[in-house]
Amino acid sequence: MSDAEAKSKPHRLKPVLLGKNMVIDCHGHYTSEPAALLEYRKQQVAALNDPSKAPGELRISDDEIREKLEPAQLKFQRERGTDIAIFSPRASAMGHHVGNEATSVAWSRICNDMIHRVCNLYPRNFIGVCQLPQSPGVPPGNCIPELERCVNELGFVGCNLNPDPSGGYWKEPPLTDRWWYPLYEKMVDLDVPAMVHVTATCNPAFHTTGSHYLNADTTAFMQFLTSDLFKDFPSLKFVIPHGGGAVPFHWGRYRGMAQDMKRPPLKELLLNNVYFDTCVYHQPGIDLLAKVIPADNILFASEMVGAVKGIDPETGHYFDDTKRYIDGVSWLNAEDKRKIFEGNAMKVYPRLGKQISRQADAARA
Amino acid sequence: MSDAEAKSKPHRLKPVLLGKNMVIDCHGHYTSEPAALLEYRKQQVAALNDPSKAPGELRISDDEIREKLEPAQLKFQRERGTDIAIFSPRASAMGHHVGNEATSVAWSRICNDMIHRVCNLYPRNFIGVCQLPQSPGVPPGNCIPELERCVNELGFVGCNLNPDPSGGYWKEPPLTDRWWYPLYEKMVDLDVPAMVHVTATCNPAFHTTGSHYLNADTTAFMQFLTSDLFKDFPSLKFVIPHGGGAVPFHWGRYRGMAQDMKRPPLKELLLNNVYFDTCVYHQPGIDLLAKVIPADNILFASEMVGAVKGIDPETGHYFDDTKRYIDGVSWLNAEDKRKIFEGNAMKVYPRLGKQISRQADAARA
Repeated sequence: MSDAEAKSKPHRLKPVLLGKNMVIDCHGHYTSEPAALLEYRKQQVAALNDPSKAPGELRISDDEIREKLEPAQLKFQRERGTDIAIFSPRASAMGHHVGNEATSVAWSRICNDMIHRVCNLYPRNFIGVCQLPQSPGVPPGNCIPELERCVNELGFVGCNLNPDPSGGYWKEPPLTDRWWYPLYEKMVDLDVPAMVHVTATCNPAFHTTGSHYLNADTTAFMQFLTSDLFKDFPSLKFVIPHGGGAVPFHWGRYRGMAQDMKRPPLKELLLNNVYFDTCVYHQPGIDLLAKVIPADNILFASEMVGAVKGIDPETGHYFDDTKRYIDGVSWLNAEDKRKIFEGNAMKVYPRLGKQISRQADAARA
Repeated sequence: MSDAEAKSKPHRLKPVLLGKNMVIDCHGHYTSEPAALLEYRKQQVAALNDPSKAPGELRISDDEIREKLEPAQLKFQRERGTDIAIFSPRASAMGHHVGNEATSVAWSRICNDMIHRVCNLYPRNFIGVCQLPQSPGVPPGNCIPELERCVNELGFVGCNLNPDPSGGYWKEPPLTDRWWYPLYEKMVDLDVPAMVHVTATCNPAFHTTGSHYLNADTTAFMQFLTSDLFKDFPSLKFVIPHGGGAVPFHWGRYRGMAQDMKRPPLKELLLNNVYFDTCVYHQPGIDLLAKVIPADNILFASEMVGAVKGIDPETGHYFDDTKRYIDGVSWLNAEDKRKIFEGNAMKVYPRLGKQISRQADAARA
């Protein structure tokens, strides 16, 4: 098969129901959006001060979507041997702090609809996860209608939950506060997990992908550690992205703090509900992650095309080609790797298996 | 020598000037303060609302200081084979967000004076580093008089610099902003480094030692990465504590981001000015640190008695007995370890060698 043929052919989904192993990337954002989407957002934001600048109808053709996705996420899936991405709108563009709740509702619907189009165009390659229409100070329960729409109507399997809709000033109650409970009840009801994911920061102290994202991961973990949230919601599940921020590097600190606080061991306290992805862009980091976090709690992810786009001069491979690092961990056995690449995603996203089958059927039809 | 004799005898300083190796713990806080100091602070804070509650003169005897220090920091120095701690006031008690600038000036002077008394009582065991009288929105240059007093009059060798005097709301400009330059000019002039260290958070989203400290470390590093601060101050030096927060775990991410931004390699961009301590409380974390960060940039530290006080059931040793972890890194050679335990501290704190000699002379006299 020539390169051109390979590119024109959608990547084949391995038939999961027949028991073959898949490589599921649980953390992909739609960072190859057509320019018209970004232009629409620019106009939406401009219209906050000047209603005459409000955008018209968003017009994006299927071909425009294909043209941007093919040489980006789809190319890398093929090259790296990953099968399917759990795919959500660009995280930094969620911008929950921009405008008000209505701004966020309108923008979230549009972004989630774009993900749905991508999943329809490439049903073997992408499964949807939604952005929530959060807004600073607005009860998270207000996000329920959009969550229900995405799960029940669009076939999405999870959501991204922003612990800091203020964009870097951290004005919301901790994720363990009852403030968030109505949303959690609905998540449990729908059987969908959340990835804890902030958006761009408007606080000049932080850099969006260089500190704010990682800080949010660390912050959320510590909120969970100090609370009894999972006594109230035993089946609620969170994925902490970017390898858990600082958490695995400081696993001894967290084990020790839990012990000092007379909390149960972390495994018992958190590891039925909290999972870490593998968006850590060098072998020593992945080695550490795989050493301290049980294989049952690690989900393969790359976040490509994301925070780091280049090739590591030390290895000659893309920094974010995280599959190589997992493959390179000598002490993980085949069963561990199967969990990391597929099994844990199926467990954490209970709707995933059925949705993969459903989309595969649609692709065949 | 009996246990009782050992306890009554100050720990002997190895004669550094004769070329013997020392173990210098660059990150110790005075967490075994006499209760009277904490009571004084309580009254100072109460007096902000009710001047009748203002504290009287602070009275603490030398014996009270000894009684609390002996079974804490001094006992652990002896047991763990560390020689000397670079010692500063309790970080969580700095409370820069409490009251106003005058509150902070008064409290900082008192805390720094206590450190000076400790150094006078145990000149072989402690070298002073000061708390700065920062206050939200107040120019950092206002801290210069206290910094000068501590360095020139009290023999201190560095300072702790808080990038977020708001206590978790991050309202100050980044550490790379000209806002901070007058203080940096004085630091360069006095030849003292700063450890980047926040204080307790008053933001309920964060946990002081479980997320806020680590987030601040990560945040500061990314501020440095995106700026040309060290072109303006080639000899300015910072220690990022707690192993650098999330940074070494994500070293590939940072290398990749610098490359994407067309910045110089991290080694060239930052590693003549930025150093990491070893307050990482498990072997896998220290292994990672020692793998990705050059030995020239790692300073031994334990922060005992600090965030984690217990014994790790997995090892039978104190979580914060970090010397064991460094000793346990097989690929560090003797010269690397000498740098981590002593040489790098001498380099980063240029006044340290002389101050150790000066205090050793005083001890002999």
